[in-house]
Amino acid sequence: MQITVLAGGVGGARFVRGLLRTPAVADDPGSTVTVVGNTGDDITLVGLRVCPDLDTLLYTLGGGVDEEQGWGRAGDTREVKAELDALGVGPSWFGLGDRDLGTHLARTRWLGQGLSLSEVTDRLARRWGLPERQVRLLPATDTPIETHVVVDDEDGGERALHFQEWWVRHGARLPARRFTVAGLADAAPAPGVLEAIRSADVVLLPPSNPVVSIGIILGVPGVREALRGTRAPVVGVSPLLGGRPVRGHADACLAPLGVEVSAAGVAGLYADFLGGWLVDDADADATFPPRLPVRALDLLMRDEAGAARIAGAALDLAAELSPAVPVGDR
Amino acid sequence: MQITVLAGGVGGARFVRGLLRTPAVADDPGSTVTVVGNTGDDITLVGLRVCPDLDTLLYTLGGGVDEEQGWGRAGDTREVKAELDALGVGPSWFGLGDRDLGTHLARTRWLGQGLSLSEVTDRLARRWGLPERQVRLLPATDTPIETHVVVDDEDGGERALHFQEWWVRHGARLPARRFTVAGLADAAPAPGVLEAIRSADVVLLPPSNPVVSIGIILGVPGVREALRGTRAPVVGVSPLLGGRPVRGHADACLAPLGVEVSAAGVAGLYADFLGGWLVDDADADATFPPRLPVRALDLLMRDEAGAARIAGAALDLAAELSPAVPVGDR
Repeated sequence: MQITVLAGGVGGARFVRGLLRTPAVADDPGSTVTVVGNTGDDITLVGLRVCPDLDTLLYTLGGGVDEEQGWGRAGDTREVKAELDALGVGPSWFGLGDRDLGTHLARTRWLGQGLSLSEVTDRLARRWGLPERQVRLLPATDTPIETHVVVDDEDGGERALHFQEWWVRHGARLPARRFTVAGLADAAPAPGVLEAIRSADVVLLPPSNPVVSIGIILGVPGVREALRGTRAPVVGVSPLLGGRPVRGHADACLAPLGVEVSAAGVAGLYADFLGGWLVDDADADATFPPRLPVRALDLLMRDEAGAARIAGAALDLAAELSPAVPVGDR
Repeated sequence: MQITVLAGGVGGARFVRGLLRTPAVADDPGSTVTVVGNTGDDITLVGLRVCPDLDTLLYTLGGGVDEEQGWGRAGDTREVKAELDALGVGPSWFGLGDRDLGTHLARTRWLGQGLSLSEVTDRLARRWGLPERQVRLLPATDTPIETHVVVDDEDGGERALHFQEWWVRHGARLPARRFTVAGLADAAPAPGVLEAIRSADVVLLPPSNPVVSIGIILGVPGVREALRGTRAPVVGVSPLLGGRPVRGHADACLAPLGVEVSAAGVAGLYADFLGGWLVDDADADATFPPRLPVRALDLLMRDEAGAARIAGAALDLAAELSPAVPVGDR
């Protein structure tokens, strides 16, 4: 089975890790999970290109993630960061682990040698053994894009922050007026992205942020059309449980869009291509778009088994929706 | 007193650290030691500009050096390097500590912002408290230069290695045919270098490598002429004791020049400007250039006190040579 997933960082990575444990993938060596990763929150720090979501996917799927934190390398140290702080170089609020920095240094070096972000990501994926784990990781686009958050300034006007500054430094507490993504309108989907959506047996949307993660991927020209046009069922998992995100700040991202902060509100963002929607038991009785197949279950990913359970439910719903999706081996 | 020192890495740094303990400097807040550091063995690794000799000077004079190793940061870790090795990026033979990498990242960032190496070095010197220690550190040149070593290749021809590869990876064991320094002929002395030589009360040559450290500084256009023209006595300390270097590979560097591997041979390299020469007791009876004032003493720098003793002897000899050099407070 060919499964394509559009993913952000921690939630997306954990969902995919669960997906790899479902029988549909684990028991079928021919199955491949193609993960299209968000690149909108990429940032250049101290001259190094950092791709937070791709790195979280690499480390989580490769078995090297800091489980408690959800991102970064397990047991990483911060010696380089301490020296940069002593020198007053780079933002103090961005955590840069030492092993993690090895990734950024290599990526920056390879990009500087003329490799595309796709090619760089492929090298990193091999270092983390992703092909052997049936995973293909693609950036949404090789075009550098950058999400900015427009907030109020002190004079009653507005100012734009890099998404990471808003998210990490300010904890998404500065009310966002809107999000803008530099470069997005002219970005090209990375090689293989549209094909992975069009030729998939199933397309899954994990409980990633619908605005600044999946929303960015959807904004890459051609991606939304590919989702509308694919014969694969597109099944999503709500990132909001009882109107609240499990982690992250999806609520702070939905508000400025005028979208209801709820599982139904998020479903509305995907209405033009969504084939099925998984919501938490807490949202079972909410009102969803008419004719949208909705299934309620416990959506809390407490551990890998929990993530596998939710991913399996998504595949089940996909099989219900499409005769082409194999049933019974999930 | 204004003292100017032309220095390489470990030996030069330890000599200057001793110099700072002599009464001429320690007891006179008006004294300044201007160190002109070799940049010929600078190298770009994984996109980062590394200046081994300047860094050794910064760390040694700033109190942060790994004493046992002689270079690098005390107690440094190698987490980034481990990841780079896992990714197959960068040469495996070059040691890059994590804290040390902070220096290289900052330097590369600042150079990328358009600062000169002098300006970058000044920022790093302030981080290490060098001005408070009466030290001014100048790179020999802001022009990027790079020492290459020409060695035999397998086919009876020759090939050129970066100096660091020859020195670090091969331990200077590949016989050198000659040294070439890319960029040196067109390099400009860094701001302040010629002035520091011309206006000094004393110029000292520590026991640094006469070919690939001091020799490179002497090759920067204008430096040698400034040494010939300065009114300050130029006093050198032999890097060879009984014909052998205490550390490093000065012997392997002198041989291809056809220069005798001895204290006398090195003195000959400086003959056109050298005012006085300190040699080890083991070399007291050697034949030196006629009319060159030579003093023999124990030249082994066992510790800081030993380095101070040798630096003090160099100042003593300078005072003998020039009425302008204050006597009695050394």
